[in-house]
Amino acid sequence: MREITGGVTAAKGFEAAGTEAAIKYHNRKDMAMIYSKRPCVLAGTFTSNVVKAAPVLWDKKVVEESPYGQAIIINAGIANAGTGKEGYEYCLRTAIKTSECLNIPKEAVLVASTGVIGMQLPIDRIEAGVLKLSEEKSDALEAGTEAAAAIMTTDTRLKQAAAEITVGGVTVTLGGMSKGSGMIHPNMCTMLAFVTTDAVISKELLTKAVKEDVTDTYNMISVDGDTSTNDTLLVMANGMAQNPEIKEGTPEYEAFKEALHYVNETLAKMMAGDGEGATALYEAKVIGAATKEDAQKLSKSMVGSSLCKAAIYGHDANWGRFLCALGYAGVDFDPEKTELFFESRAGKIQVYKAGMTAPYSEEEAGRILSEPEVTVLADMHMGNETATAWGCDLTYDYVKINADYRS
Amino acid sequence: MREITGGVTAAKGFEAAGTEAAIKYHNRKDMAMIYSKRPCVLAGTFTSNVVKAAPVLWDKKVVEESPYGQAIIINAGIANAGTGKEGYEYCLRTAIKTSECLNIPKEAVLVASTGVIGMQLPIDRIEAGVLKLSEEKSDALEAGTEAAAAIMTTDTRLKQAAAEITVGGVTVTLGGMSKGSGMIHPNMCTMLAFVTTDAVISKELLTKAVKEDVTDTYNMISVDGDTSTNDTLLVMANGMAQNPEIKEGTPEYEAFKEALHYVNETLAKMMAGDGEGATALYEAKVIGAATKEDAQKLSKSMVGSSLCKAAIYGHDANWGRFLCALGYAGVDFDPEKTELFFESRAGKIQVYKAGMTAPYSEEEAGRILSEPEVTVLADMHMGNETATAWGCDLTYDYVKINADYRS
Repeated sequence: MREITGGVTAAKGFEAAGTEAAIKYHNRKDMAMIYSKRPCVLAGTFTSNVVKAAPVLWDKKVVEESPYGQAIIINAGIANAGTGKEGYEYCLRTAIKTSECLNIPKEAVLVASTGVIGMQLPIDRIEAGVLKLSEEKSDALEAGTEAAAAIMTTDTRLKQAAAEITVGGVTVTLGGMSKGSGMIHPNMCTMLAFVTTDAVISKELLTKAVKEDVTDTYNMISVDGDTSTNDTLLVMANGMAQNPEIKEGTPEYEAFKEALHYVNETLAKMMAGDGEGATALYEAKVIGAATKEDAQKLSKSMVGSSLCKAAIYGHDANWGRFLCALGYAGVDFDPEKTELFFESRAGKIQVYKAGMTAPYSEEEAGRILSEPEVTVLADMHMGNETATAWGCDLTYDYVKINADYRS
Repeated sequence: MREITGGVTAAKGFEAAGTEAAIKYHNRKDMAMIYSKRPCVLAGTFTSNVVKAAPVLWDKKVVEESPYGQAIIINAGIANAGTGKEGYEYCLRTAIKTSECLNIPKEAVLVASTGVIGMQLPIDRIEAGVLKLSEEKSDALEAGTEAAAAIMTTDTRLKQAAAEITVGGVTVTLGGMSKGSGMIHPNMCTMLAFVTTDAVISKELLTKAVKEDVTDTYNMISVDGDTSTNDTLLVMANGMAQNPEIKEGTPEYEAFKEALHYVNETLAKMMAGDGEGATALYEAKVIGAATKEDAQKLSKSMVGSSLCKAAIYGHDANWGRFLCALGYAGVDFDPEKTELFFESRAGKIQVYKAGMTAPYSEEEAGRILSEPEVTVLADMHMGNETATAWGCDLTYDYVKINADYRS
């Protein structure tokens, strides 16, 4: 697997565009399109929230029932959630308009929205946006970058990643883009992520690969514990690399999964590190857990704790909070055996062992915690399973952003 | 039931004191004692955290194994959690010192600590504090107030409540004190609460009454989702009212439970409303749920959401966040049937119905949300069960307090 530059237009046959549709934001691009020259095999995972936004309901139907997909229309500013029948009607109208502009079936059009809940989309501006996007789309890498910029809400950085592998002498490429950055929590959260690939792979195997990888990537990030109504991951494979079909149980499938994991993990970590108001990427790593599920629960508990996140923000080696978060994760363990470490580019120190504080230098701990990427490592000494979760620190700015998000 | 003034010294035969022991704070009282002139029947509930502080381990043993209890020693500043065998040894030494000063068995002494995790207690200062408290204790109402002030950490207000009932022509009194205000989350969380009563009641029945009431009071509050290592509720009944023994299934037991509930709910709401950095008490009320458990999950999910809490702080009628929090509570319901209301002293308005926004005035909503006590009411239309949870808004000051709690 090789990391490469680019995003959703890195793979063959994919085009993208971003445009200013004035949905709710002004003086910035707020609508994007991803288009494939050929029909694509689709895989998707969606929010587990009982309250599902209209585009989630629409996309689930397309992924489950349509033979293929060919375009995705995304808007930022309004989530089209809590919008009743009218909201669903607007998904249909967006698909119809796209179908007309691109000359593809409306059942091959996916839609995604992110932003405030409860407002109706200005459908005339959405339709005008679709027309502009259809005219402006391009397969240049920059077009992918523009699309990635257009789907941002409170994100401060655009998020894209790409990789390539060789399958039967042929280069197969995967690329993706995503946006955060509030309401981010395990179980698909608004988190939107889109991955494109030119691989030849069956819908079944693509779905399997995506489903398995989501557990270790997107479902391991948390910004604020709130699982959004709109979370969506869509993966499109158009087969234009013309590689021999990727089959399960082969080295090629392993390589494909590795590249998919790289793209997904990179996009997921970018979302965590760019959580609302974040100043640091906070990684919570658990090793030595009895089961994989335990390891995931323990790492997610640390990464989701407001007190731990505030300690990261304050560069404060208050290890008791991390031990406490392990303790209420719903996992049985022996606190006397647990060891805790802080780690970053600046070094690594042990802070807790044998039921008590380890002898460490507060100054060194503060230096380690002052880096932009910080890891808290817990060794449970209960088994051999591991898991890593990603989040961010809790800052004044998180509160500022969310105390008045709508205005 | 009649509400009365006072706290832990309201009931007959209870004495209290607060003193300056310089555990970690300076120029303030940071140690308290509650003492009963007669041996007490004990009931207690403790943190569900796997990592239990030394005093929790000590108190569990006393509550389960000792025939009675007679004194509680509490310190603020250091939690005596994550302190290994040395920490437990200090509980024992505190009990021995108290036993000597008060001439009671060491097995009748309970201890409680709150503050930073991982530091050892300065046991010499604790022992000196016990001596001073023994000399200064008094049954005056003011002595209860002094004790309530001495156990505060980041609390901004002291918390006490008391009530009386009549049993067989005799007045029975209950009084309590508590402290919050971070690491507060369902499942007994540092939350310390102490209730005293002069009722004649068996240990079994007192335990039953306490266990049932905790579910609807302390376990329904959340400040930050972090369940502490030290949460403790202790209830002492010394029988000095000399009422005919309270028996199960009688009107007297119902009256006792009502008074106990009043004291517990009042202390719990005080903790929620005085959450770290809070500017408002945020009440999340669910009606029309299919089961009691559903109602509790739904109300706790709303009260625990950072995004909902930030919206309360911003006086922002962003109802989508409350709907979203209901949606990820792990309860099945029909969002089309759900109705949402905002309510406070300033009025009540419906903001969501039939899957969409209700027509409401943003100005009126803002006015309602600007009060110091705000209720978000969700009618699920799935059944007849109800639950109420209490929390507070999420503010800059929460982050400020917690980014550097130790210094």
